[in-house]
Amino acid sequence: MSAAPPLQVADDDLALLTDLYQLTMLQAYWKEGLRERATFSLYFRQLPDTRRFMLACGQQHAAAVASRLRFQPHHLEQLAASGQFEAEFLAWLGEWRFSGDIWTLPEGTPVFPNQPLLEVEAPIAEAQLLESLIMNLVQLETLLASKAVRLVLAADGRPVVDFGMRRMHGVDAAVRGVRAYRSAGLAGTSNVLGGLRHDLPLRGTMAHSYILAHDDEREAFRTFMRHYPGTTLLVDTYDTLDGVRDLIALLDAEPELHLGAIRLDSGDLGALAKASRRLLDDAGHTRVKIVASSGLDEHKIAALVAQGAPIDVFGVGTQLGVSADAPVIDLSYKLVEYAGMPRAKRSPGKLNLPGRKQVYRRLDERGALAGDTLALRDEAPPSGTPLLVPLVEGGRLDAEQMALAEQAPQRVAETLQCLPASLRTLEGGECDYPLSLSPALSRLAERHR
Amino acid sequence: MSAAPPLQVADDDLALLTDLYQLTMLQAYWKEGLRERATFSLYFRQLPDTRRFMLACGQQHAAAVASRLRFQPHHLEQLAASGQFEAEFLAWLGEWRFSGDIWTLPEGTPVFPNQPLLEVEAPIAEAQLLESLIMNLVQLETLLASKAVRLVLAADGRPVVDFGMRRMHGVDAAVRGVRAYRSAGLAGTSNVLGGLRHDLPLRGTMAHSYILAHDDEREAFRTFMRHYPGTTLLVDTYDTLDGVRDLIALLDAEPELHLGAIRLDSGDLGALAKASRRLLDDAGHTRVKIVASSGLDEHKIAALVAQGAPIDVFGVGTQLGVSADAPVIDLSYKLVEYAGMPRAKRSPGKLNLPGRKQVYRRLDERGALAGDTLALRDEAPPSGTPLLVPLVEGGRLDAEQMALAEQAPQRVAETLQCLPASLRTLEGGECDYPLSLSPALSRLAERHR
Repeated sequence: MSAAPPLQVADDDLALLTDLYQLTMLQAYWKEGLRERATFSLYFRQLPDTRRFMLACGQQHAAAVASRLRFQPHHLEQLAASGQFEAEFLAWLGEWRFSGDIWTLPEGTPVFPNQPLLEVEAPIAEAQLLESLIMNLVQLETLLASKAVRLVLAADGRPVVDFGMRRMHGVDAAVRGVRAYRSAGLAGTSNVLGGLRHDLPLRGTMAHSYILAHDDEREAFRTFMRHYPGTTLLVDTYDTLDGVRDLIALLDAEPELHLGAIRLDSGDLGALAKASRRLLDDAGHTRVKIVASSGLDEHKIAALVAQGAPIDVFGVGTQLGVSADAPVIDLSYKLVEYAGMPRAKRSPGKLNLPGRKQVYRRLDERGALAGDTLALRDEAPPSGTPLLVPLVEGGRLDAEQMALAEQAPQRVAETLQCLPASLRTLEGGECDYPLSLSPALSRLAERHR
Repeated sequence: MSAAPPLQVADDDLALLTDLYQLTMLQAYWKEGLRERATFSLYFRQLPDTRRFMLACGQQHAAAVASRLRFQPHHLEQLAASGQFEAEFLAWLGEWRFSGDIWTLPEGTPVFPNQPLLEVEAPIAEAQLLESLIMNLVQLETLLASKAVRLVLAADGRPVVDFGMRRMHGVDAAVRGVRAYRSAGLAGTSNVLGGLRHDLPLRGTMAHSYILAHDDEREAFRTFMRHYPGTTLLVDTYDTLDGVRDLIALLDAEPELHLGAIRLDSGDLGALAKASRRLLDDAGHTRVKIVASSGLDEHKIAALVAQGAPIDVFGVGTQLGVSADAPVIDLSYKLVEYAGMPRAKRSPGKLNLPGRKQVYRRLDERGALAGDTLALRDEAPPSGTPLLVPLVEGGRLDAEQMALAEQAPQRVAETLQCLPASLRTLEGGECDYPLSLSPALSRLAERHR
């Protein structure tokens, strides 16, 4: 190990983040001269038990990565040293640029089983090569956005803030996760780098250690308010309601101090919020807000909202940061067409839909989701709006479509405003949202059973 | 959005990967002149329900990150723009280097509740600043190593290979995860960048798409064996046993072809392995190995081993890559000493142990774990070997200790060889492994209740 090995994966090294078999298959295709165009489709067969829909996110990042992927000279040396690759192939790999097309759902689109989040169309070797990396990149943001949007639904208009950076799986998850949170409608994040990079407001309170580092709680409160007028103070280090009473006494004694909010971080949050609100209001501090955190998830938030707990902001960490109740999506990236012919693996009991596809979504008169038809991309379009759009064409990112992706938060907010009740519920289970196959796709699937 | 925003977090940007409150508290400490030394302890209160122990991993990486952390001029500009930080403080931050000590468990040490994986001792602001980043970095590798070691136990000597890169949470998880897998004793990985960077052998087979891109399965088998003599072929694209029979016919007809293994990736793996083994053996292909994959976890592997399934190598993806049954550890990073005085938050029903600590581990005559005592670092040592060692002193990484961390795989292998039955079992539940507190620590904890 050298004195200072890299801590992170550099942008230039992403081409090597693949499974070995992608490279051995690539060399095989290259040697066989198999260069016909293939289409691979990225989708999931079923929703996690605890989800009614997923929010497709990360396709834009994946497409940006694909369009910039290059093998570097030191990659080629490392591959040569493995003894599995021929010099001529490696020379070709060094020149390789993605030359194909990538169609994607817009960022923040609700997506259902068997619908492509993304389709890659390129000479087969190129499309195959992207498999592992695209799956890794898209899964992360889709998982996190799909969890975050449930918190937003549960909070019913009150802001939800991400406090979970420390629980996320490593650095890339922590930073790109904030992009997904922004799309899903979170109001802020404690994560400095993530928030700055992905344009989500930074929020922060204080830690128990700050209180413990002072001789008493009141001294810590006074000092922090002097540094940060209007700040949020953590009141549960010793005893929550004693902390609130002490704080009120301090504010009364030193009226130049300015408090923005208190934060409850342990105990029965509903009861403590009510009692704290009463203490604050009785003392005339009606504008001081209450932030609650501590093991929150969408179910606990919904219960607090239902019982009328006077909580103004919810802070969520652990359960959000790893999508703890559904930490993985069983994404597939399957060959669906090769050399113009639909293809599908036969698997007993599994639906494998051949062919390049398009998703048509119908909205009712209020703009609410009313039903989807999954169809072949080239058949006569059924009713509804086609959702998949070309984001990369001939290896080039479409700048206009990339810019549209930045509007995901508005798009998601509009979708949530009129989400059908069967999708709005936080419970899992069968869903009556209408999903159908076009007749042409049904017939084709039947022939490939 | 600029034309080519960064895809990854650069090494130089890691200082900004923190929670906002760490920076606001830091400025507060700085303004108040609170510069006494503090010790923070990283530990978990309880094991996930499905774990008997965790394998501490990632401390070395976290220490390396801490020792190299620097705020860059563009960070200071971004922080200044937030309006919460004073110019003089930011100037100080620009000059800041970590100057403290970090004690850690060696990589790959089994760790139990309340035992520090790591303790940071430094002027309070510095130790506080590292909290969020250290928790993120250590959690990832500890989670993944702790899951991986269960697969190794279940496989009972047969190699286990990681196929899960595509399911992991982003790029950093996918690459650093391989470091944890290596420590835990996995035999290989399909992940090219992860394996090359962290020195775990690369393994790969083929994907169904390769078969589907050829006119028939036999042609695909023939071609791939010609390219890669001794390779592993995926036999379940159409029908597993038909695939094996076809492959045997091909090997009989063209004896110059060389097959290393077949891979089963769907169906009843135990029954298919037995039937495939019989077909291969009857045809004289006794040296061809069988690789099995498809939704495997430690329980399925243990069941296959118990029923005598003739599987030579297990490939594991989804369940491993996110530690799906325990995707998060409830790690705490708590102030335990400030200015020479033990400190602890009071939390009803929670044990908070003040003071700098050391873990003493006793082994029996066979070298098996026999019991631990958690003690104050400076009290007269109880019996057993002290486990925490200083990895960073005065801000400098100890090169010798860093080199020792590379031996984690051997250390883990030795530990597993004589692991007590109560820790070896794959079931969760109460464990009789003896964990005790030293009398001095017990008395101190009692005083802080």
